[in-house]
Amino acid sequence: MSRIAARRRVTRMTVGGPVSQRADFLTVEEPLEIRVFGKSLAVTMRTPGHDVELAAGFLVSEGVIHHAEHYSTARYCAGATVDDGNTYNVLDVTLAPGVAPPDPSLERNFYTTSSCGLCGKASIDAVHTASHYTVDKDPLSIDAAKLETFPDLLRAEQAVFDRTGGLHAAALFDGTTGEMLVLREDVGRHNAVDKVVGWALMHDRLPARNCVLMVSGRASFELTQKALMAGIPMLAAVSAPSSLAADLANDVGMTLVGFLRGPSMVVYSRADRITNETGFADPDPTPSPQKAALS
Amino acid sequence: MSRIAARRRVTRMTVGGPVSQRADFLTVEEPLEIRVFGKSLAVTMRTPGHDVELAAGFLVSEGVIHHAEHYSTARYCAGATVDDGNTYNVLDVTLAPGVAPPDPSLERNFYTTSSCGLCGKASIDAVHTASHYTVDKDPLSIDAAKLETFPDLLRAEQAVFDRTGGLHAAALFDGTTGEMLVLREDVGRHNAVDKVVGWALMHDRLPARNCVLMVSGRASFELTQKALMAGIPMLAAVSAPSSLAADLANDVGMTLVGFLRGPSMVVYSRADRITNETGFADPDPTPSPQKAALS
Repeated sequence: MSRIAARRRVTRMTVGGPVSQRADFLTVEEPLEIRVFGKSLAVTMRTPGHDVELAAGFLVSEGVIHHAEHYSTARYCAGATVDDGNTYNVLDVTLAPGVAPPDPSLERNFYTTSSCGLCGKASIDAVHTASHYTVDKDPLSIDAAKLETFPDLLRAEQAVFDRTGGLHAAALFDGTTGEMLVLREDVGRHNAVDKVVGWALMHDRLPARNCVLMVSGRASFELTQKALMAGIPMLAAVSAPSSLAADLANDVGMTLVGFLRGPSMVVYSRADRITNETGFADPDPTPSPQKAALS
Repeated sequence: MSRIAARRRVTRMTVGGPVSQRADFLTVEEPLEIRVFGKSLAVTMRTPGHDVELAAGFLVSEGVIHHAEHYSTARYCAGATVDDGNTYNVLDVTLAPGVAPPDPSLERNFYTTSSCGLCGKASIDAVHTASHYTVDKDPLSIDAAKLETFPDLLRAEQAVFDRTGGLHAAALFDGTTGEMLVLREDVGRHNAVDKVVGWALMHDRLPARNCVLMVSGRASFELTQKALMAGIPMLAAVSAPSSLAADLANDVGMTLVGFLRGPSMVVYSRADRITNETGFADPDPTPSPQKAALS
């Protein structure tokens, strides 16, 4: 049995219709403790699989490492057992000689070190300080017609795994060829992105120049931050971004695309990276009735 | 301008069609630092609004308080300023006399205190230990026809606020009347649930006996845990639950409903609380072709 999907007994019910019991598959969610040099750094609820990438990507997102040579090894802790069996839920990462281990208070302090009070601007400044890479000068240029294909490619690849209806996906695409380089899934969208970033680190692809990170759901500040920490110049999401995701993308010069569905999309920052060779500029856009009412 | 939705300049693009610039509304995401007696406990990215409920609900979820009389006051820290203006992003909670402040290491240690290694079972045990309330004996009984109405009630209420396409919702329903008691929205589903739980605490409704917590997305372990900490006997979700959410619900005797869409639903635990007066038992359920292939 795969550790990605687990079978459980469920009751299916239809109002005014049949009630039946059967087996069903659920997305597996289990805790993963990430340790560095034996010291606990974080516990995340994740879908097992690609745990080493998840840990490596998490360390990139947190600004601990940003290059393949910073990472050394990872092993499941043999001591972390239930009934003398390894749970494969505790992963200890060893960093390369000379790489400083993370400050254990890192996570909590990430947004609170600003002296000017806590606000969106301070959060953006904190990310600026933590990020080793910049993306504003990345020469990525991609046609809208190529971007249009990404959600279908994501879904097609997901369909192989997703028999549970409960997985988020993140994928990295090559900006020139449009090829999907890697796709990872998880119950948590931040974990799916960390797995992709960890894959890129371990394949010595950081910064991930000329790449597009595509996510199945919404684009939050956290996901935009993770893209920046990996040097990815474009984040595309099937659903809506938040205000702070758009503000961070604008601030660092990342292209942020939302509502990428079928041939249409909304671009929140650095639209100059997206060409639309078969399209045309609308000289007098008429707002939709809903939007007009809100203006 | 509301702090829930913020206007940003965007570029709308259609492959082979028009490209136009216009204003659009995005869900606001801003950091909130929760302090207790002046000491920082957590920073969460949230949609502003109902922050006091969010902080109170967070403290319930973390097992710090579980009753209205444990809570005293909350105020935005005047010192947390940008250009001498309050950012309204730092909230300091005062607990009632005699209530112990939280251990600052609480959050990180919640799932790692088990001596038997880190696994789903250990996480469930940790929640058992932390929870003040039990739900297995809650007499809630609700007809499937009533449950069927909840998603539409949720959407109808959300439609008033949701002009951004980017908000999760959580709502508490009375199990007897089917009335919606409260609905809260947030960019983070865990925040939406914390706001609902905080509302219940401040209205002296904890434990929330005979109630149903309905969420717009998926049911994770974390949301199931939050429902238990508030003494809510039923969690219903529009989408899929995870394996660990179902295992926790089974373990504590909570009813967990997923894929609640139109007249159909899947029940993962304690289906005995759901009646189907107009329905009938299917004596020989035929698995769907997809499911059969996986069996």
